[in-house]
Amino acid sequence: MDRRHFVQQAAALAALPALSRLGGAAHTGPVQTKPLAVNGTRLNGWLTEFDRIGRTAGGINRVAYSEADLAGRAFTRGLFEQSGLTLRLDTAGNMLARVPGTDARLAPILIGSHIDSVTDGGNFDGPVGSFAAIEVARSLAEQRVRLRHPLEVVVWQNEEGGTIGSKIAVGLLTPADLDKVARSGKTVREGIGIIGGDVTRVGEAVRKKGDIAGYIELHIEQGGLLEKASRQIGVVEGIVGLRWFEITITGFSNHAGATPMDQRQDAMLAAARFTVAVNEAIRSEGGRQVATVGRLNVTPNTTNVIPGQVVLTVDLRDLEQAKIDRFTATFERLGREIGAATGTKFSFTQMVNSTPALSDPRIMDVVQGSATALGLSHQRMPSGAGHDAQEVAHVAPMGMIFIPSVGGISHSPKEFSRAADITNGANVLLNAVVAADRVLP
Amino acid sequence: MDRRHFVQQAAALAALPALSRLGGAAHTGPVQTKPLAVNGTRLNGWLTEFDRIGRTAGGINRVAYSEADLAGRAFTRGLFEQSGLTLRLDTAGNMLARVPGTDARLAPILIGSHIDSVTDGGNFDGPVGSFAAIEVARSLAEQRVRLRHPLEVVVWQNEEGGTIGSKIAVGLLTPADLDKVARSGKTVREGIGIIGGDVTRVGEAVRKKGDIAGYIELHIEQGGLLEKASRQIGVVEGIVGLRWFEITITGFSNHAGATPMDQRQDAMLAAARFTVAVNEAIRSEGGRQVATVGRLNVTPNTTNVIPGQVVLTVDLRDLEQAKIDRFTATFERLGREIGAATGTKFSFTQMVNSTPALSDPRIMDVVQGSATALGLSHQRMPSGAGHDAQEVAHVAPMGMIFIPSVGGISHSPKEFSRAADITNGANVLLNAVVAADRVLP
Repeated sequence: MDRRHFVQQAAALAALPALSRLGGAAHTGPVQTKPLAVNGTRLNGWLTEFDRIGRTAGGINRVAYSEADLAGRAFTRGLFEQSGLTLRLDTAGNMLARVPGTDARLAPILIGSHIDSVTDGGNFDGPVGSFAAIEVARSLAEQRVRLRHPLEVVVWQNEEGGTIGSKIAVGLLTPADLDKVARSGKTVREGIGIIGGDVTRVGEAVRKKGDIAGYIELHIEQGGLLEKASRQIGVVEGIVGLRWFEITITGFSNHAGATPMDQRQDAMLAAARFTVAVNEAIRSEGGRQVATVGRLNVTPNTTNVIPGQVVLTVDLRDLEQAKIDRFTATFERLGREIGAATGTKFSFTQMVNSTPALSDPRIMDVVQGSATALGLSHQRMPSGAGHDAQEVAHVAPMGMIFIPSVGGISHSPKEFSRAADITNGANVLLNAVVAADRVLP
Repeated sequence: MDRRHFVQQAAALAALPALSRLGGAAHTGPVQTKPLAVNGTRLNGWLTEFDRIGRTAGGINRVAYSEADLAGRAFTRGLFEQSGLTLRLDTAGNMLARVPGTDARLAPILIGSHIDSVTDGGNFDGPVGSFAAIEVARSLAEQRVRLRHPLEVVVWQNEEGGTIGSKIAVGLLTPADLDKVARSGKTVREGIGIIGGDVTRVGEAVRKKGDIAGYIELHIEQGGLLEKASRQIGVVEGIVGLRWFEITITGFSNHAGATPMDQRQDAMLAAARFTVAVNEAIRSEGGRQVATVGRLNVTPNTTNVIPGQVVLTVDLRDLEQAKIDRFTATFERLGREIGAATGTKFSFTQMVNSTPALSDPRIMDVVQGSATALGLSHQRMPSGAGHDAQEVAHVAPMGMIFIPSVGGISHSPKEFSRAADITNGANVLLNAVVAADRVLP
């Protein structure tokens, strides 16, 4: 994968044309004296209505290509239409609407997110950013603010199944991705047709470098950092790189009663020591790196038999590639040491490896500047979760805005973000778009 | 359960009548000048032949009530017959043969074991002791040795499914046991009929206290203690008590990327710490106590989700009930401490609880004396595995003889015991029976 890390560069604000308000109220004095505001009541009303679609006893189930996903897309189409935005589908099935800018030579600024959900998820992961993007475009029109750049609102398809829509849009979808089965039971290949795309022509949906001036995505944090720090806005520094390992620990199955403690090759004990050691290592230094043992399967998995084999996974993430590489080496060393100490053998397989996707410094600055102008408390932070923005980062400057998740909970029916925080996030998005319109070429 | 711990009592050897050899070679001088010997070649030949029955690619599969089990019983019936032993089945389907003694008032001495296997097991766990018992009875007859007590050879049915045959024989089978499904897919209720018993009359198979003078079982060790200590014979001190716990650890499932390390309630980490702590605790003091975490299931068990729940088991065993109780308290305390440290909750459920079944000191003495007389190295040791002897212990003095398992391996196609060790074990059984005949009332 060709990922670029956008180097900070000073924004030559003075050189850029001023924001133009259409009609009688057009500014002629200094640029942006007072922040703009969205209609937060309207935006939160849409989210409340949307909560009925795909709601089951287990939570929100709008998994990609399901009936509920289609119903969600129909609802969203209605929002585009009532907001005066002309919807088009690209060949991938992504939903798009374009508002022309004052300078026809410029590439568009994209804003948006997704509306599909995980199984038994919540109503905020995706819809908040998607509906806020529609609201921002509508507010700009209502307030007769016209940007230099075209503004494109996008709702990416199937984010939860592996950022499929945005991956297609940056030309990184593989043939294997097309055969992936979404949680709805449909393959991506089938799904693209179901939602109105055309799998034989997905190449037409691809955006190349230069095709997008910048991308800004509002999203719920999905963690508890903002809440714990009592911050209203997260200025996302980037989406962490991720490495997944599958580790097979081979010991020797034997009788749990007849085998003395000092004659065991217990794969479970080795796995337990490793899990503890990984946790201690990752916490032994400052920073926001995380490591998780999330999956663990035991053989034979019987009460009275010493486990002969354990297969477990480690999910390792950080914004800094060097740190991911360093912890990889640490975990491999821990495996060797614990293997030697327990008479077991550790075998590492790398399953997934994605490098960090860093936010563009200019977009971070406009997000932070907007939060400050709005009087919102904020902090810079990585995104530990993956987002469509990480795909867009392959072809365009990217940035993200986070709002708090109550209790840090996401991918759960308990996922919740407060209406005031959603309005705050949309206001930051609105003002960041206006500011980005000035700083981005 | 009414378990009695037989208190050591001095055997008044001098008061007992001497061993009588029938015919011209009858002894009249001091008791037992030279140890008796079985025909080891014959015994090992039977085991070699038996290895063909129920042998599959995965190992020996003579699971109770299966076709292979029936074939094994038919083969064993042949051994009884060719050895001049008149086979009878009790109503439980246990195979029995009785050789009268010289004193008709005395209860019989029982020797035997089982011939059923686990799934994908070996040829030695059970058959060694069963065939050795037949060989001992045959050798006694061939060598014209007649005991005071009747001698009963017994092959218990379905040991691996929960010592079913011996449990029936001591009146401890519950209605729930009858509905247990053996690995062959047959219930115990069905199985009893299949092997020639009568489930409506199983009460007739029950032996009460006083009905059995003593029980001696030869068995493979199923652990690596004898091999590691270079001992030929284990004098079993008893069958360890066992306590099984199922422990549910409840944390909170959350996003593996978005949740900082210091905001997690990770049930997997708690389970790992607990597994390590249980191992450290059990090894922190001398003795042969064992504890095993053998089964562990994770929810949701997904690479990128912090586990919200782990259910694991602990198998705790020792020969001393007080030690089992003490470690139970230790494990519960560790669960509370680790729960508090990790933001998780530990909930303990006791699944199985059996008290230790101690060997009778007189039988331990005759086993040890026989090993010494035969010039075999030996040591006292607990049985970590369960055996039919633990059931018989409810109604009669009991003891067991162990021979080495190569590599400490059992319940595996790699299970193996050397022919010389098997012959040694049978010789100890033979001489122990003769000696027990003197010391037991």
